[in-house]
Amino acid sequence: MIKAGIIGSTGYAGGELVRILSAHKEAEVKWYGSRSYIDQNYAKVYRNMFQIVDAVCMDDNMEQLAEQVDVIFTATPQGLCASLVNEDILSKVKIIDLSADFRIRDVSVYEQWYGIEHKSPRFIGEAVYGLCEVNREEIKKARLVANPGCYTTCSILTAYPLAKEGLIDMNTLIIDAKSGTSGAGRGAKVPNLFCEVNENMKAYGVASHRHTPEIEEQLGYASGEKVLLNFTPHLVPMNRGILATEYAALKREVSYEEVKAVYDQYYAGEQFVRVLDRDECPETKWVEGSNYVDVNFKIDSRTGRIIMMGAIDNLVKGAAGQAVQNMNLMFGLKESEGLELVPMFP
Amino acid sequence: MIKAGIIGSTGYAGGELVRILSAHKEAEVKWYGSRSYIDQNYAKVYRNMFQIVDAVCMDDNMEQLAEQVDVIFTATPQGLCASLVNEDILSKVKIIDLSADFRIRDVSVYEQWYGIEHKSPRFIGEAVYGLCEVNREEIKKARLVANPGCYTTCSILTAYPLAKEGLIDMNTLIIDAKSGTSGAGRGAKVPNLFCEVNENMKAYGVASHRHTPEIEEQLGYASGEKVLLNFTPHLVPMNRGILATEYAALKREVSYEEVKAVYDQYYAGEQFVRVLDRDECPETKWVEGSNYVDVNFKIDSRTGRIIMMGAIDNLVKGAAGQAVQNMNLMFGLKESEGLELVPMFP
Amino acid sequence: MIKAGIIGSTGYAGGELVRILSAHKEAEVKWYGSRSYIDQNYAKVYRNMFQIVDAVCMDDNMEQLAEQVDVIFTATPQGLCASLVNEDILSKVKIIDLSADFRIRDVSVYEQWYGIEHKSPRFIGEAVYGLCEVNREEIKKARLVANPGCYTTCSILTAYPLAKEGLIDMNTLIIDAKSGTSGAGRGAKVPNLFCEVNENMKAYGVASHRHTPEIEEQLGYASGEKVLLNFTPHLVPMNRGILATEYAALKREVSYEEVKAVYDQYYAGEQFVRVLDRDECPETKWVEGSNYVDVNFKIDSRTGRIIMMGAIDNLVKGAAGQAVQNMNLMFGLKESEGLELVPMFP
Amino acid sequence: MIKAGIIGSTGYAGGELVRILSAHKEAEVKWYGSRSYIDQNYAKVYRNMFQIVDAVCMDDNMEQLAEQVDVIFTATPQGLCASLVNEDILSKVKIIDLSADFRIRDVSVYEQWYGIEHKSPRFIGEAVYGLCEVNREEIKKARLVANPGCYTTCSILTAYPLAKEGLIDMNTLIIDAKSGTSGAGRGAKVPNLFCEVNENMKAYGVASHRHTPEIEEQLGYASGEKVLLNFTPHLVPMNRGILATEYAALKREVSYEEVKAVYDQYYAGEQFVRVLDRDECPETKWVEGSNYVDVNFKIDSRTGRIIMMGAIDNLVKGAAGQAVQNMNLMFGLKESEGLELVPMFP
Repeated sequence: MIKAGIIGSTGYAGGELVRILSAHKEAEVKWYGSRSYIDQNYAKVYRNMFQIVDAVCMDDNMEQLAEQVDVIFTATPQGLCASLVNEDILSKVKIIDLSADFRIRDVSVYEQWYGIEHKSPRFIGEAVYGLCEVNREEIKKARLVANPGCYTTCSILTAYPLAKEGLIDMNTLIIDAKSGTSGAGRGAKVPNLFCEVNENMKAYGVASHRHTPEIEEQLGYASGEKVLLNFTPHLVPMNRGILATEYAALKREVSYEEVKAVYDQYYAGEQFVRVLDRDECPETKWVEGSNYVDVNFKIDSRTGRIIMMGAIDNLVKGAAGQAVQNMNLMFGLKESEGLELVPMFP
Repeated sequence: MIKAGIIGSTGYAGGELVRILSAHKEAEVKWYGSRSYIDQNYAKVYRNMFQIVDAVCMDDNMEQLAEQVDVIFTATPQGLCASLVNEDILSKVKIIDLSADFRIRDVSVYEQWYGIEHKSPRFIGEAVYGLCEVNREEIKKARLVANPGCYTTCSILTAYPLAKEGLIDMNTLIIDAKSGTSGAGRGAKVPNLFCEVNENMKAYGVASHRHTPEIEEQLGYASGEKVLLNFTPHLVPMNRGILATEYAALKREVSYEEVKAVYDQYYAGEQFVRVLDRDECPETKWVEGSNYVDVNFKIDSRTGRIIMMGAIDNLVKGAAGQAVQNMNLMFGLKESEGLELVPMFP
Repeated sequence: MIKAGIIGSTGYAGGELVRILSAHKEAEVKWYGSRSYIDQNYAKVYRNMFQIVDAVCMDDNMEQLAEQVDVIFTATPQGLCASLVNEDILSKVKIIDLSADFRIRDVSVYEQWYGIEHKSPRFIGEAVYGLCEVNREEIKKARLVANPGCYTTCSILTAYPLAKEGLIDMNTLIIDAKSGTSGAGRGAKVPNLFCEVNENMKAYGVASHRHTPEIEEQLGYASGEKVLLNFTPHLVPMNRGILATEYAALKREVSYEEVKAVYDQYYAGEQFVRVLDRDECPETKWVEGSNYVDVNFKIDSRTGRIIMMGAIDNLVKGAAGQAVQNMNLMFGLKESEGLELVPMFP
Repeated sequence: MIKAGIIGSTGYAGGELVRILSAHKEAEVKWYGSRSYIDQNYAKVYRNMFQIVDAVCMDDNMEQLAEQVDVIFTATPQGLCASLVNEDILSKVKIIDLSADFRIRDVSVYEQWYGIEHKSPRFIGEAVYGLCEVNREEIKKARLVANPGCYTTCSILTAYPLAKEGLIDMNTLIIDAKSGTSGAGRGAKVPNLFCEVNENMKAYGVASHRHTPEIEEQLGYASGEKVLLNFTPHLVPMNRGILATEYAALKREVSYEEVKAVYDQYYAGEQFVRVLDRDECPETKWVEGSNYVDVNFKIDSRTGRIIMMGAIDNLVKGAAGQAVQNMNLMFGLKESEGLELVPMFP
């Protein structure tokens, strides 16, 4: 039985990790870290866990934690994991970091977009970007995995096959993404109050959202060229779900069948990526609560563009589910263990 | 492996049965009945099931079905199960009826509240009311189980211990219940459109809702007296969840500890009923997607009344989950098989 | 032109006052008080007011304010108005207090339920309870009006005619109320975050909510007897609206027509109270954005009870609208000036 | 007093026309047409209008209507207005058509995108496209106004100044639009049920939505070139509101101030278009219930693109409000009469 510790277990992503791991056959949570709720009963913070989790919240002492568990999940704001990790810890325990600290190769890009100094740049080179469908083999060997962001997971996987196969002009790529409000976290802020979000829709972080360089870097690897793109996130009055609508000019005329074949080439064997049938648009509700990514596309011959669409549950495939998928790979377990969650509808 | 057939598999309760059974280790769905979608791919109707269920919808031929499966779930409007069932069928297959056809002992009460003639009153006596926590032993031996209604499950279990122990004056019982909109079904009706339900709250079926006699009958058995009560359902702008707030005069002065002990006496050993800690009010979100019933109470010494509260997911414990719990009991499986669903939050 | 000042103009009730007064022909807001946003542009706090309100937020100096305006609205937490008001101020300006400070006659009841000391009990006797349909004539002469609470407005008006006419047994009255989330205010608290409220339903303040004694006092005046009742508020995932479902035993057998006549006797002449047609249940959406109270009732001859129902927009008739209605009465304006708001649907 | 008739008064746009006109000082509704609810009380269909509108629904006899009113609003599906209008009618009455029948100059484009034959192409040339901020003078003289679509109003006005001034490359324009569910109408269809829309987000009509040619035509007039663009609508779980996020390559390097000046040049004098302050993103909630269009933009120097954003209430500026604005222009009234609606928040 793999022993897991979670630093930041009382955020929404941390809570989802607890939900998923509580049904995982090969792992169990041994440390519910939460700076805000130290010594409080976890099931008082997340009452869905009443009579399921019988533990109190611990602080975030990573040294101590490294002695007690096999894997640490850091579901904390950026900066924390980088400030705690060291060689001694990494020699004892595997780390899956749900923050952005180890997602970006170029430390100066990280520091520019995140506005903070990186405290352990020496581990950036070692860290593996934990997008399982893309970096599976590297993840299996990693000590430190940078779990991708929610928007980035959805945005990258939606365009990946076409970027990789060179079907789209990467300079024209525009990603218009829409997210449920759990992506904004559990912090008590006026803009996230029910009455401010409900019956409302807005863009935010226009031309400046931090997931932009992460998407650019990964799609740059895929396409083999430097990518600059527009990424615009929007806040939607729903709890969960990300929908990415992506636009790019096609490099040449292509048929539906040709593009479908490219998607299938990459995803037919992937358990968690579903390429939908022709003309069906991904909807966030159809993947809610699950680790699935639903993708599809539509060719617009009038404009010579292709519209690619992808939907995930931001807390599962966009955070905790993918983290568990990474854990499964790192420990040689069945990749889908604990993740065969059927989407809940309605 | 138990083979299950579902008549009415494309309603919301039917869809939830499919979701739960798709993760059940000892049962599998062999027949996806749906009069409205015959010959259509089930995963086109419920796209969450894409690449999970590979079957087409069948008609609702119960005779034929009885040859092929071990258990039939009828998740259909009232009247259908009663019109199809017969001795030959019951000799071959167990039936769990999610409609109201066999819930009420007195056929005249059924016919009065439902406004239709009962087509097979001869099976009413045999049918067992499938409220697992109350009728567990009878259910184990049953051929025909009447799966309780959603409002009734929540309403009865919330008051059951106090009714049974004679702590409350049954003549004063008032049940004010609130339900998510999935309880209204998937029929295309103007009052159930998004724009009509969203940002709205209303009572309906005041003093005339069909779940009233069912609650009265069951709480009558518990209390040993004839019960007449007020039951008022309300429609709430959310997908899932029922909250029942129940009021009754206490027959005598009681302490918190005394009442808590009564609840614990009935529910401490029940896996799916959680008696919350003092002063915590049940919330539907904390049980969403699970088979739990969360209950609690508050004594108001000013008025001499007790306020009892219960919350369930109407599609799980209020319909499909309880149906599977009944199936598990009827086939001698672990009662919680397939039902150890952790509530999803947020 | 009446000059109005608002202390607490950046709360939800304060914002609604600004919305309503900005279209009022005989009054204009001269002072946008907001301790939290002093010196900030009001239209930056409530961006619906961009290019409509061109003013900065001021502090809450009531002395200074009294020199500059004709009427002060205090849309602040309890305690503030009582701590600021004095004879000098009241000699210069009329005050409409949206907090609870002057709603309850018995200062010990106030101090017990609110848990704070009352700072100016000497004005309690003078203050008029601003439920316009009940106290119209007194309001016209008042210097200080205690604007009723949102739950109380709805709860009282729903039962008022029957309490007044002695048709119901006041000892059996139970009020089960449901409110949209704007009633919880604009404070940044985790329980009011979108993801905590959305898809959720709960009771709170069971047997202890502060609006209880206010309802009891007013219905006591109506019925001429001391009233103790159960009042249970619930939080609903919608922005606006309160629905009250009220239960009471009928003192004698009555017909629909008889009860309807009693409601009509009190409300037929009231512009803002609509007694619905037979069998129609009030819905919050049908009054949204307006000053209406929609009421109706259903007699349950089985149990001998009557179920009364009422719906309001908690920010309009439950707060700002009623405050303006009070202002209109106090200044001899047309009672409905600025309040002929047509409910918005959907 | 202008007498107005509404054909299709029981759809959501028709209902909004009734709401707005009921507070209009110079017009009154004399004919509530509704094929679905003939002879029924209008206030039974839209219960917000109880005690406000006292009229029964009429059929849609345009000949008869033309004798009785000064202006006819047709808030009906495409095809109906074109099938009813004729020279005799137009000689007696002004018509404001909220359907698409007279929005598109080229009848073959209309017939191709809408898939129906146009029944009165001879009036297309005469009809004026009723986008008030663009065609104000022509509207004043028109007998027949084609009221713009909801998506198109928002999409066009958001990009208009930059298209007109030649700052953006029209071949690169991409419009990603998000709409509340009232845009889908009040028809009883499964995809518009509460449980299907709530907690869900999806694109639809990708590369094929009927508002595409309308936007292309109007932005073609503005830019003086043929425009082909991508328009992708999305369904959002909220009642009202459209948000358009638009992307285009800048033809040359521009400063914030320069672009702001262009927007101000067109909109500073417009009462219903608000160009927001720097870095503020339009939100649908801030315009809800009002006739405002909130617009803003962000220059992304990294990609050389500009992101333009606009928000409207789809039922007001996107339908009924703009129709009344057109009526005011056509009858020489104050353009804002009946439309000085303050957005409602929250």
